Formats: sequence, structure tokens, C-alpha cells
Amino acid sequence: MELLKQRIREEGHVLGDKVLKVDSFLNHQIDPVLMMEIGDEFARRFAEAGVTKILTIESSGIAAALTTALKLNVKMVFARKKKSALMNEEAYVTKVHSFTKNETNEVTVLKKFLGAGEKVLIIDDFLANGEAAAGLAYLVEQAGSEVVGIGIVIEKAFQDGGRRLREKGFKVESLARIAAFSDGKVQFVEESVKA
Amino acid sequence: MELLKQRIREEGHVLGDKVLKVDSFLNHQIDPVLMMEIGDEFARRFAEAGVTKILTIESSGIAAALTTALKLNVKMVFARKKKSALMNEEAYVTKVHSFTKNETNEVTVLKKFLGAGEKVLIIDDFLANGEAAAGLAYLVEQAGSEVVGIGIVIEKAFQDGGRRLREKGFKVESLARIAAFSDGKVQFVEESVKA
Repeated sequence: MELLKQRIREEGHVLGDKVLKVDSFLNHQIDPVLMMEIGDEFARRFAEAGVTKILTIESSGIAAALTTALKLNVKMVFARKKKSALMNEEAYVTKVHSFTKNETNEVTVLKKFLGAGEKVLIIDDFLANGEAAAGLAYLVEQAGSEVVGIGIVIEKAFQDGGRRLREKGFKVESLARIAAFSDGKVQFVEESVKA
Repeated sequence: MELLKQRIREEGHVLGDKVLKVDSFLNHQIDPVLMMEIGDEFARRFAEAGVTKILTIESSGIAAALTTALKLNVKMVFARKKKSALMNEEAYVTKVHSFTKNETNEVTVLKKFLGAGEKVLIIDDFLANGEAAAGLAYLVEQAGSEVVGIGIVIEKAFQDGGRRLREKGFKVESLARIAAFSDGKVQFVEESVKA
């Protein structure tokens, strides 16, 4: 997605050899116009997947999941990292480790919002080690539903989450794939232009 | 907002005399179409306020803040309840206690996303004791900016957060105001019909 890559080039900050900060438009401050474009693009890429529900994880996945849900005209559920006192109902739970925050969370979705027979599109802002996406996919499997796709805003393709998810057979679509950071600059994976 | 009240009547679950669960459309599963209507309504109510930025707090405020930001054509920032390892920059911080989750969080916004001279609209999903909204307003004041309004999806008007914020001079607009829960039913505050 060229518009997104352009914003990453202009506003992204590379820290060391692994970290990209895009907090000016994606995950602290949010540009709503770009976020609608992101939803449009995910909706286009998964138009034929028969999506019936979108699943993401709080907090940074919510905006992209919402705009995608709007375009695909389905409901969206965000998994909770911390169980609220109000979530006193049956739930699917799995553990997800975040390397960025160096913490492990019990990720929870109430069963009533993730039934059997759904065709679920998983959306998240970043894919690095793939822990969050794999955890969400596991929740979908527990529910007896199918993951019809995984939509990622920015994939750090030099880490192995994307490869592992694709090897498991998931259709992973990333709007920007980063090959490497060199000298503080972002190098994107070269991709053939899609019509 | 009649559409919202209808959804609360149809899908809300009252627990005891203080708690309303609306997790089927507002804060766990999200109905994107209703969320766009909510954004439209906030944009209408604050159309004359000269809003330059929207501020909310993760996670449940993000969706409504995003749709409002889209309609008002401004950027949105969500305050973090937990500092990420990547937030190694100067920040405004305040403590906010959540009665629902029975925890106190250090709520953080990076200074670079909340400059001086902004006209900030604060958006949140619920208003009860007003802790979150007051904390966000304090961050805006620290930044040398002005809170031009507080938009709340559901106000529990039988708790005193709304009264206290209005006494401080804030323009608080709540799309549904709940007077009481009685026999498991929601009673809304009677309001004169607005044109």
C-alpha cells in the first residue's frame, strides 16, 4: 500500500535494528483518514473471503479493525488483555507474550461473541514474532470457527512471525512489509505491483 | 441519541444497581455502523467548538474517538494506561482510578502529540465517577491547551462525575443519560427533544 509506505518513510522512526515507531499516525496518535484507507485496502484484499466477523486485540488493533469492519459490513470484536470485572461469563482464553512490552497477557474473548461457524478475519497493527496473531487464531479455533485471513498493517518481514503463519496455511496480507532497517532507514520488501 | 438508547434497551444487561453491560456493541464487540452514527452525533454536537484534536483513553474510547475524528477531520490521540517500552520520550502523566477494574493506572500522552494551543475534544465510552475524563482534562491543561468539550457515549447520571465536570465549566455532551436502573431495566433521563 503505497500511501502507507510513504507515511512510514516520512514519519517513522527507526530505533536500533528492530524497532519502528509510527506513533504519529498508527498507534498513539491516529490519522483517521489514513485509517479509513487502511480499512478500504483490507476490505479489498479480503473481499472474496466471506468474512463474517473481525477479531483484533486491544489497543492498537482496534482502529484498523473498526474501519475494515465498516467496509466489510460485519461486526468487530477486540480481545481483552486484562479481564474486566464485568467479564464474568464463559470465555476463550490464551496467553500471548509481547516482546515490545516484555509482558505476557491472558487474552480473552467472551464465547458469546465468537460462536462456531464464523469466518474470521484477524487484524493487527504489527506482525513481528507473530505471537498475537497466533494467539487470536487459537481463540478462533477453540470457538470452532475458521480464520479466513490475517490482515497486518506493518509486517517486520525480517522476523519470523509472517513465515510461520503462512507455513501454517494462513492467508496473511500485510500492507507494508519491511525487509530491514539500515542506517536508520526503512527498506521495504520488493513486491510485484498488483493491479 | 434515540438509536443508541434503543440499542441499550434491546441489548444492555443491568447488573445490580450500578452496572450496565453493553459489550455486544460498544466495548468488546463493536457495531461499526452504530459507531459511525455515534461519531456523526458527536461531530454535530461539537461542530461549533473549533476542535483541533481528539483525546481519548485506551481501549474502549478508541472506536468512538476515531469515528468522531473522521467526521471532524482532525487527528485523534489515545492516552496509554501502561507506558510502552517505546514511549521513551517526554510525556504528560496522571493517575486515573477505574472503579470497574479496581485499579489505578498511570495515564500517559507523549508531549509531541499534545502541544499548546490545541482545542481538544475528550471522548470516552462511559462516564460514572468522572475519573478518566478529569484525568484527560488535566493532561490537556498540563499541555497548555483547552478542553472545548467532553463527549460521552453513556453517562450514568446517578453517579456524580457528570455533575462535577459540568460544575467545573466543561461542556459535557452525553448521547445517552441513565437516570437509574430499576428491576433490571434502564431508565433514561428525560430530556427535551432537540431539533
